[in-house]
Amino acid sequence: MRTLKLTLAYDGTNYAGWQRQASAPSIQQMVEEALAPLAGALTTVVGAGRTDAGVHAAGQVASANVEADYPASTIQRAMNARLPPDIRVVDAVEAPLGFHARFHAAGKTYRYRMATGGFVSPFDRWFVWHAPGRRDVEAMRLAGRQCVGRHDFASFQAAGTLIRGTVRTIHRLEIREEDQELVIEIDGDGFLRHMVRAIVGTLAEVGAGARPAESLRDVLAARDRAAAGDTAPACGLTLMSVRYDDRPDVMEPGPRTVKIP
Amino acid sequence: MRTLKLTLAYDGTNYAGWQRQASAPSIQQMVEEALAPLAGALTTVVGAGRTDAGVHAAGQVASANVEADYPASTIQRAMNARLPPDIRVVDAVEAPLGFHARFHAAGKTYRYRMATGGFVSPFDRWFVWHAPGRRDVEAMRLAGRQCVGRHDFASFQAAGTLIRGTVRTIHRLEIREEDQELVIEIDGDGFLRHMVRAIVGTLAEVGAGARPAESLRDVLAARDRAAAGDTAPACGLTLMSVRYDDRPDVMEPGPRTVKIP
Repeated sequence: MRTLKLTLAYDGTNYAGWQRQASAPSIQQMVEEALAPLAGALTTVVGAGRTDAGVHAAGQVASANVEADYPASTIQRAMNARLPPDIRVVDAVEAPLGFHARFHAAGKTYRYRMATGGFVSPFDRWFVWHAPGRRDVEAMRLAGRQCVGRHDFASFQAAGTLIRGTVRTIHRLEIREEDQELVIEIDGDGFLRHMVRAIVGTLAEVGAGARPAESLRDVLAARDRAAAGDTAPACGLTLMSVRYDDRPDVMEPGPRTVKIP
Repeated sequence: MRTLKLTLAYDGTNYAGWQRQASAPSIQQMVEEALAPLAGALTTVVGAGRTDAGVHAAGQVASANVEADYPASTIQRAMNARLPPDIRVVDAVEAPLGFHARFHAAGKTYRYRMATGGFVSPFDRWFVWHAPGRRDVEAMRLAGRQCVGRHDFASFQAAGTLIRGTVRTIHRLEIREEDQELVIEIDGDGFLRHMVRAIVGTLAEVGAGARPAESLRDVLAARDRAAAGDTAPACGLTLMSVRYDDRPDVMEPGPRTVKIP
């Protein structure tokens, strides 16, 4: 038995999200089916982040325990030959036996793209939220800074989610202005379901002047989903990378080998 | 009567190319159908470059004579509301009456992307030619330099094309090495059918050592399609921009408003 660490990139447009579903194809199902002939049997592949339907990844990390003794690079090549072209194994390495992509993750970085111009480029149409109109980016940054740090993020959790702990730490929330676009990067130790998208939706309302920048503290304090803004659409979101820096025995992914959209 | 100059961006994956076809949807058909309700009738839209099936554009230019007196910006917005999301009007301006996007074009820039790594990023899968393997880029550059200047490009023209003049001028042919990718940019006064793709296919053979770099002169001299290499796939090619610098009365497009894939 050995443990593999797979780094995955995918265009999530045509999938029901990471997690296996009875009714619709998921990334996890595709990856498990591509690994099965190599592993000798259908083997569970654990993803660090359970990305939602339509959410993309440039650096999702997954782990799997397998018996097969092919080199990791052979497994990568063989999986890519079986996977549909919207899912790629970007890297495959040996990990310490028992490495668990989700439990051992120390942090994740997500990126959200908002297109603010009059139209969306044909090349970006699956990767941005079209939210036309000028935004007060300084107000959004001020609001964003109130989310940084250790907080109870219950107000930003998908309604109806049953989870015990809702305290998470956001290490960094950065908003870059590009040509007719806002790019929001969030780095944290963990994220509740829909958390990034609910933060983005709330920041967008601040940017549009529909909500004061200073109110984010109250939104957090409310611990009520209704206090925050709408959930921004899935298509704008990409899981960029997963960190394992609390586990020096788990190698960092190599240099990024996919251009981000 | 007035003449409009439209700048268009499109993902050509799902189209039979620019030109109207009886059997399959084309970019021209989509653009003409989006303009028709504004123009009051189906109006011919002339494209500067007749891009082939599967070829993309970031800055195609098109002209149309219309009676309607809506401002150009209104026409742009209304066309974008009607067009499918893989075709966008990036800019619409008034042009001098009788401006003809193809006849008046002074030059065009095309870009071709070759992915040379072991796999293609999911985000690039419609926009690159996957041609894995190391290439001798210096040999490709040497070969490319032999194409620059005024030459008879009959050897690089789609077999069976009936065209009188096959002399064209390439002003610039540049090969950039990016992460596991070669980006070839070609700037010329005009291009024969499949010319850029046949040049790229021939340069790829040079890069793989299958053809000497110095042989490009002989290929040009042969005036025979069989002397050159294979035609590289359409998906790697993008029409980047069209110049009208011989016509100071025709405005240049504004700053690019689409990110290139």
